Amino acid sequence: MMSPRGRLLGLGVGPGDPELITVKALRLLREAPVVAYFVAKGKRGNAFGIIEAHLQAEQTLLPLVYPVTTEVLPAPLSYEQVISDFYDQAGEQVAAHLDAGRDVAVICEGDPFFYGSYMYLHDRLAQRYEAEVIPGVCSMLGGASVLGAPLVYRNQTLTVLSGVLPAEELKRRLADADAAVIMKLGRNFPKVRQVLGELGMDGRALYVERATMANQKIVALDAVDPQSSPYFSLIIVPGEKWQG
Amino acid sequence: MMSPRGRLLGLGVGPGDPELITVKALRLLREAPVVAYFVAKGKRGNAFGIIEAHLQAEQTLLPLVYPVTTEVLPAPLSYEQVISDFYDQAGEQVAAHLDAGRDVAVICEGDPFFYGSYMYLHDRLAQRYEAEVIPGVCSMLGGASVLGAPLVYRNQTLTVLSGVLPAEELKRRLADADAAVIMKLGRNFPKVRQVLGELGMDGRALYVERATMANQKIVALDAVDPQSSPYFSLIIVPGEKWQG
Repeated sequence: MMSPRGRLLGLGVGPGDPELITVKALRLLREAPVVAYFVAKGKRGNAFGIIEAHLQAEQTLLPLVYPVTTEVLPAPLSYEQVISDFYDQAGEQVAAHLDAGRDVAVICEGDPFFYGSYMYLHDRLAQRYEAEVIPGVCSMLGGASVLGAPLVYRNQTLTVLSGVLPAEELKRRLADADAAVIMKLGRNFPKVRQVLGELGMDGRALYVERATMANQKIVALDAVDPQSSPYFSLIIVPGEKWQG
Repeated sequence: MMSPRGRLLGLGVGPGDPELITVKALRLLREAPVVAYFVAKGKRGNAFGIIEAHLQAEQTLLPLVYPVTTEVLPAPLSYEQVISDFYDQAGEQVAAHLDAGRDVAVICEGDPFFYGSYMYLHDRLAQRYEAEVIPGVCSMLGGASVLGAPLVYRNQTLTVLSGVLPAEELKRRLADADAAVIMKLGRNFPKVRQVLGELGMDGRALYVERATMANQKIVALDAVDPQSSPYFSLIIVPGEKWQG
């Protein structure tokens, strides 16, 4: 028996180039009566920009607008509490459409399950509603492709790290990595570059901002202006080439 | 000035579901006069199966057939030497088309730069010819999607490992991972399951064979028949849910 309720769809729309969406995500996007997306206050949103050209007039847009733009809030507010409340409310907004029998496509930059905000909706709703996730090309693979950098060979270990981590942890984990990707740079960039230098890995490291997007920028690591590194930048330390 | 020589294209075709190819890879595939792919002797090839329906009669197919099916060869043969010679020859076969001015699309299951054989062609040819890589949905994200398992949250570290690694190394690296993916299982499965059990991680671990393919199989880790685990299976240990 089919459920009369709508389906929750987490659609990976890829790293930025609108052509890097999958055929499946594009089909499901076009069929969805409601299109939801996370977005910062006053912004259009990267995921929205990627799929905007495919939207049809009869589709309902559901922007889920983050209440804060920084993780550091004045006391007594805590980021964790504010953002948790926000995801609860976003979940209920999506659930209202699902209850009314409308499928909701939540568009996600990159892949929905790879550091994506969609995961917080999924964790709240996937027990109550039918949910399907369409994987996408994640930012690190978009980055490797435009850098022309084979990422990881044969039996090498790949370590994916957040630039938010403390310097000591970054150092310990990078020292043990065959290949590494460091995401979430932004104001963490100077710390990360320092650690790579201390490990002697800076010569192997490659840097790209907004990989595959129209305003993509590839810069040598030592030429990056630490004041201007955006959050959507990443560093790739490719695995040593296997002479196979 | 345009080069009269052909372009080398590494096209990620996704993890198995033919609809999980990107719009871009599909467009470039259709435009390519020559379509090359790695394949085991006597097999059709997973990448080939994914894109077969899109091929046109006028396209030239260039199967690159592995000379061996195992990494253990009778002396005095060494796998490293045999496979290196094979990639050299495959590179020259591709180069012959490029020299004749024909673009060659090398189709790659998953993503070309994520443990892909295409990397060995890229390393041999990208200095001599114009090369472009189109990233794809990699197998681990295909796996996470069908398992309904958000993979990695916020500032967690993701560790991607080959099941070929020795038990001690697997154990050391897994013990330090927030989230992990173990690829290349096959006959390494019993070793990997043993290590996960020793670490008390087996309860969190999820297993899938041929994720997103028509013959996909999801089995509880303790119910997997170790004799029948195929190479294209993987284990995912999702990161702890962030209560955001």
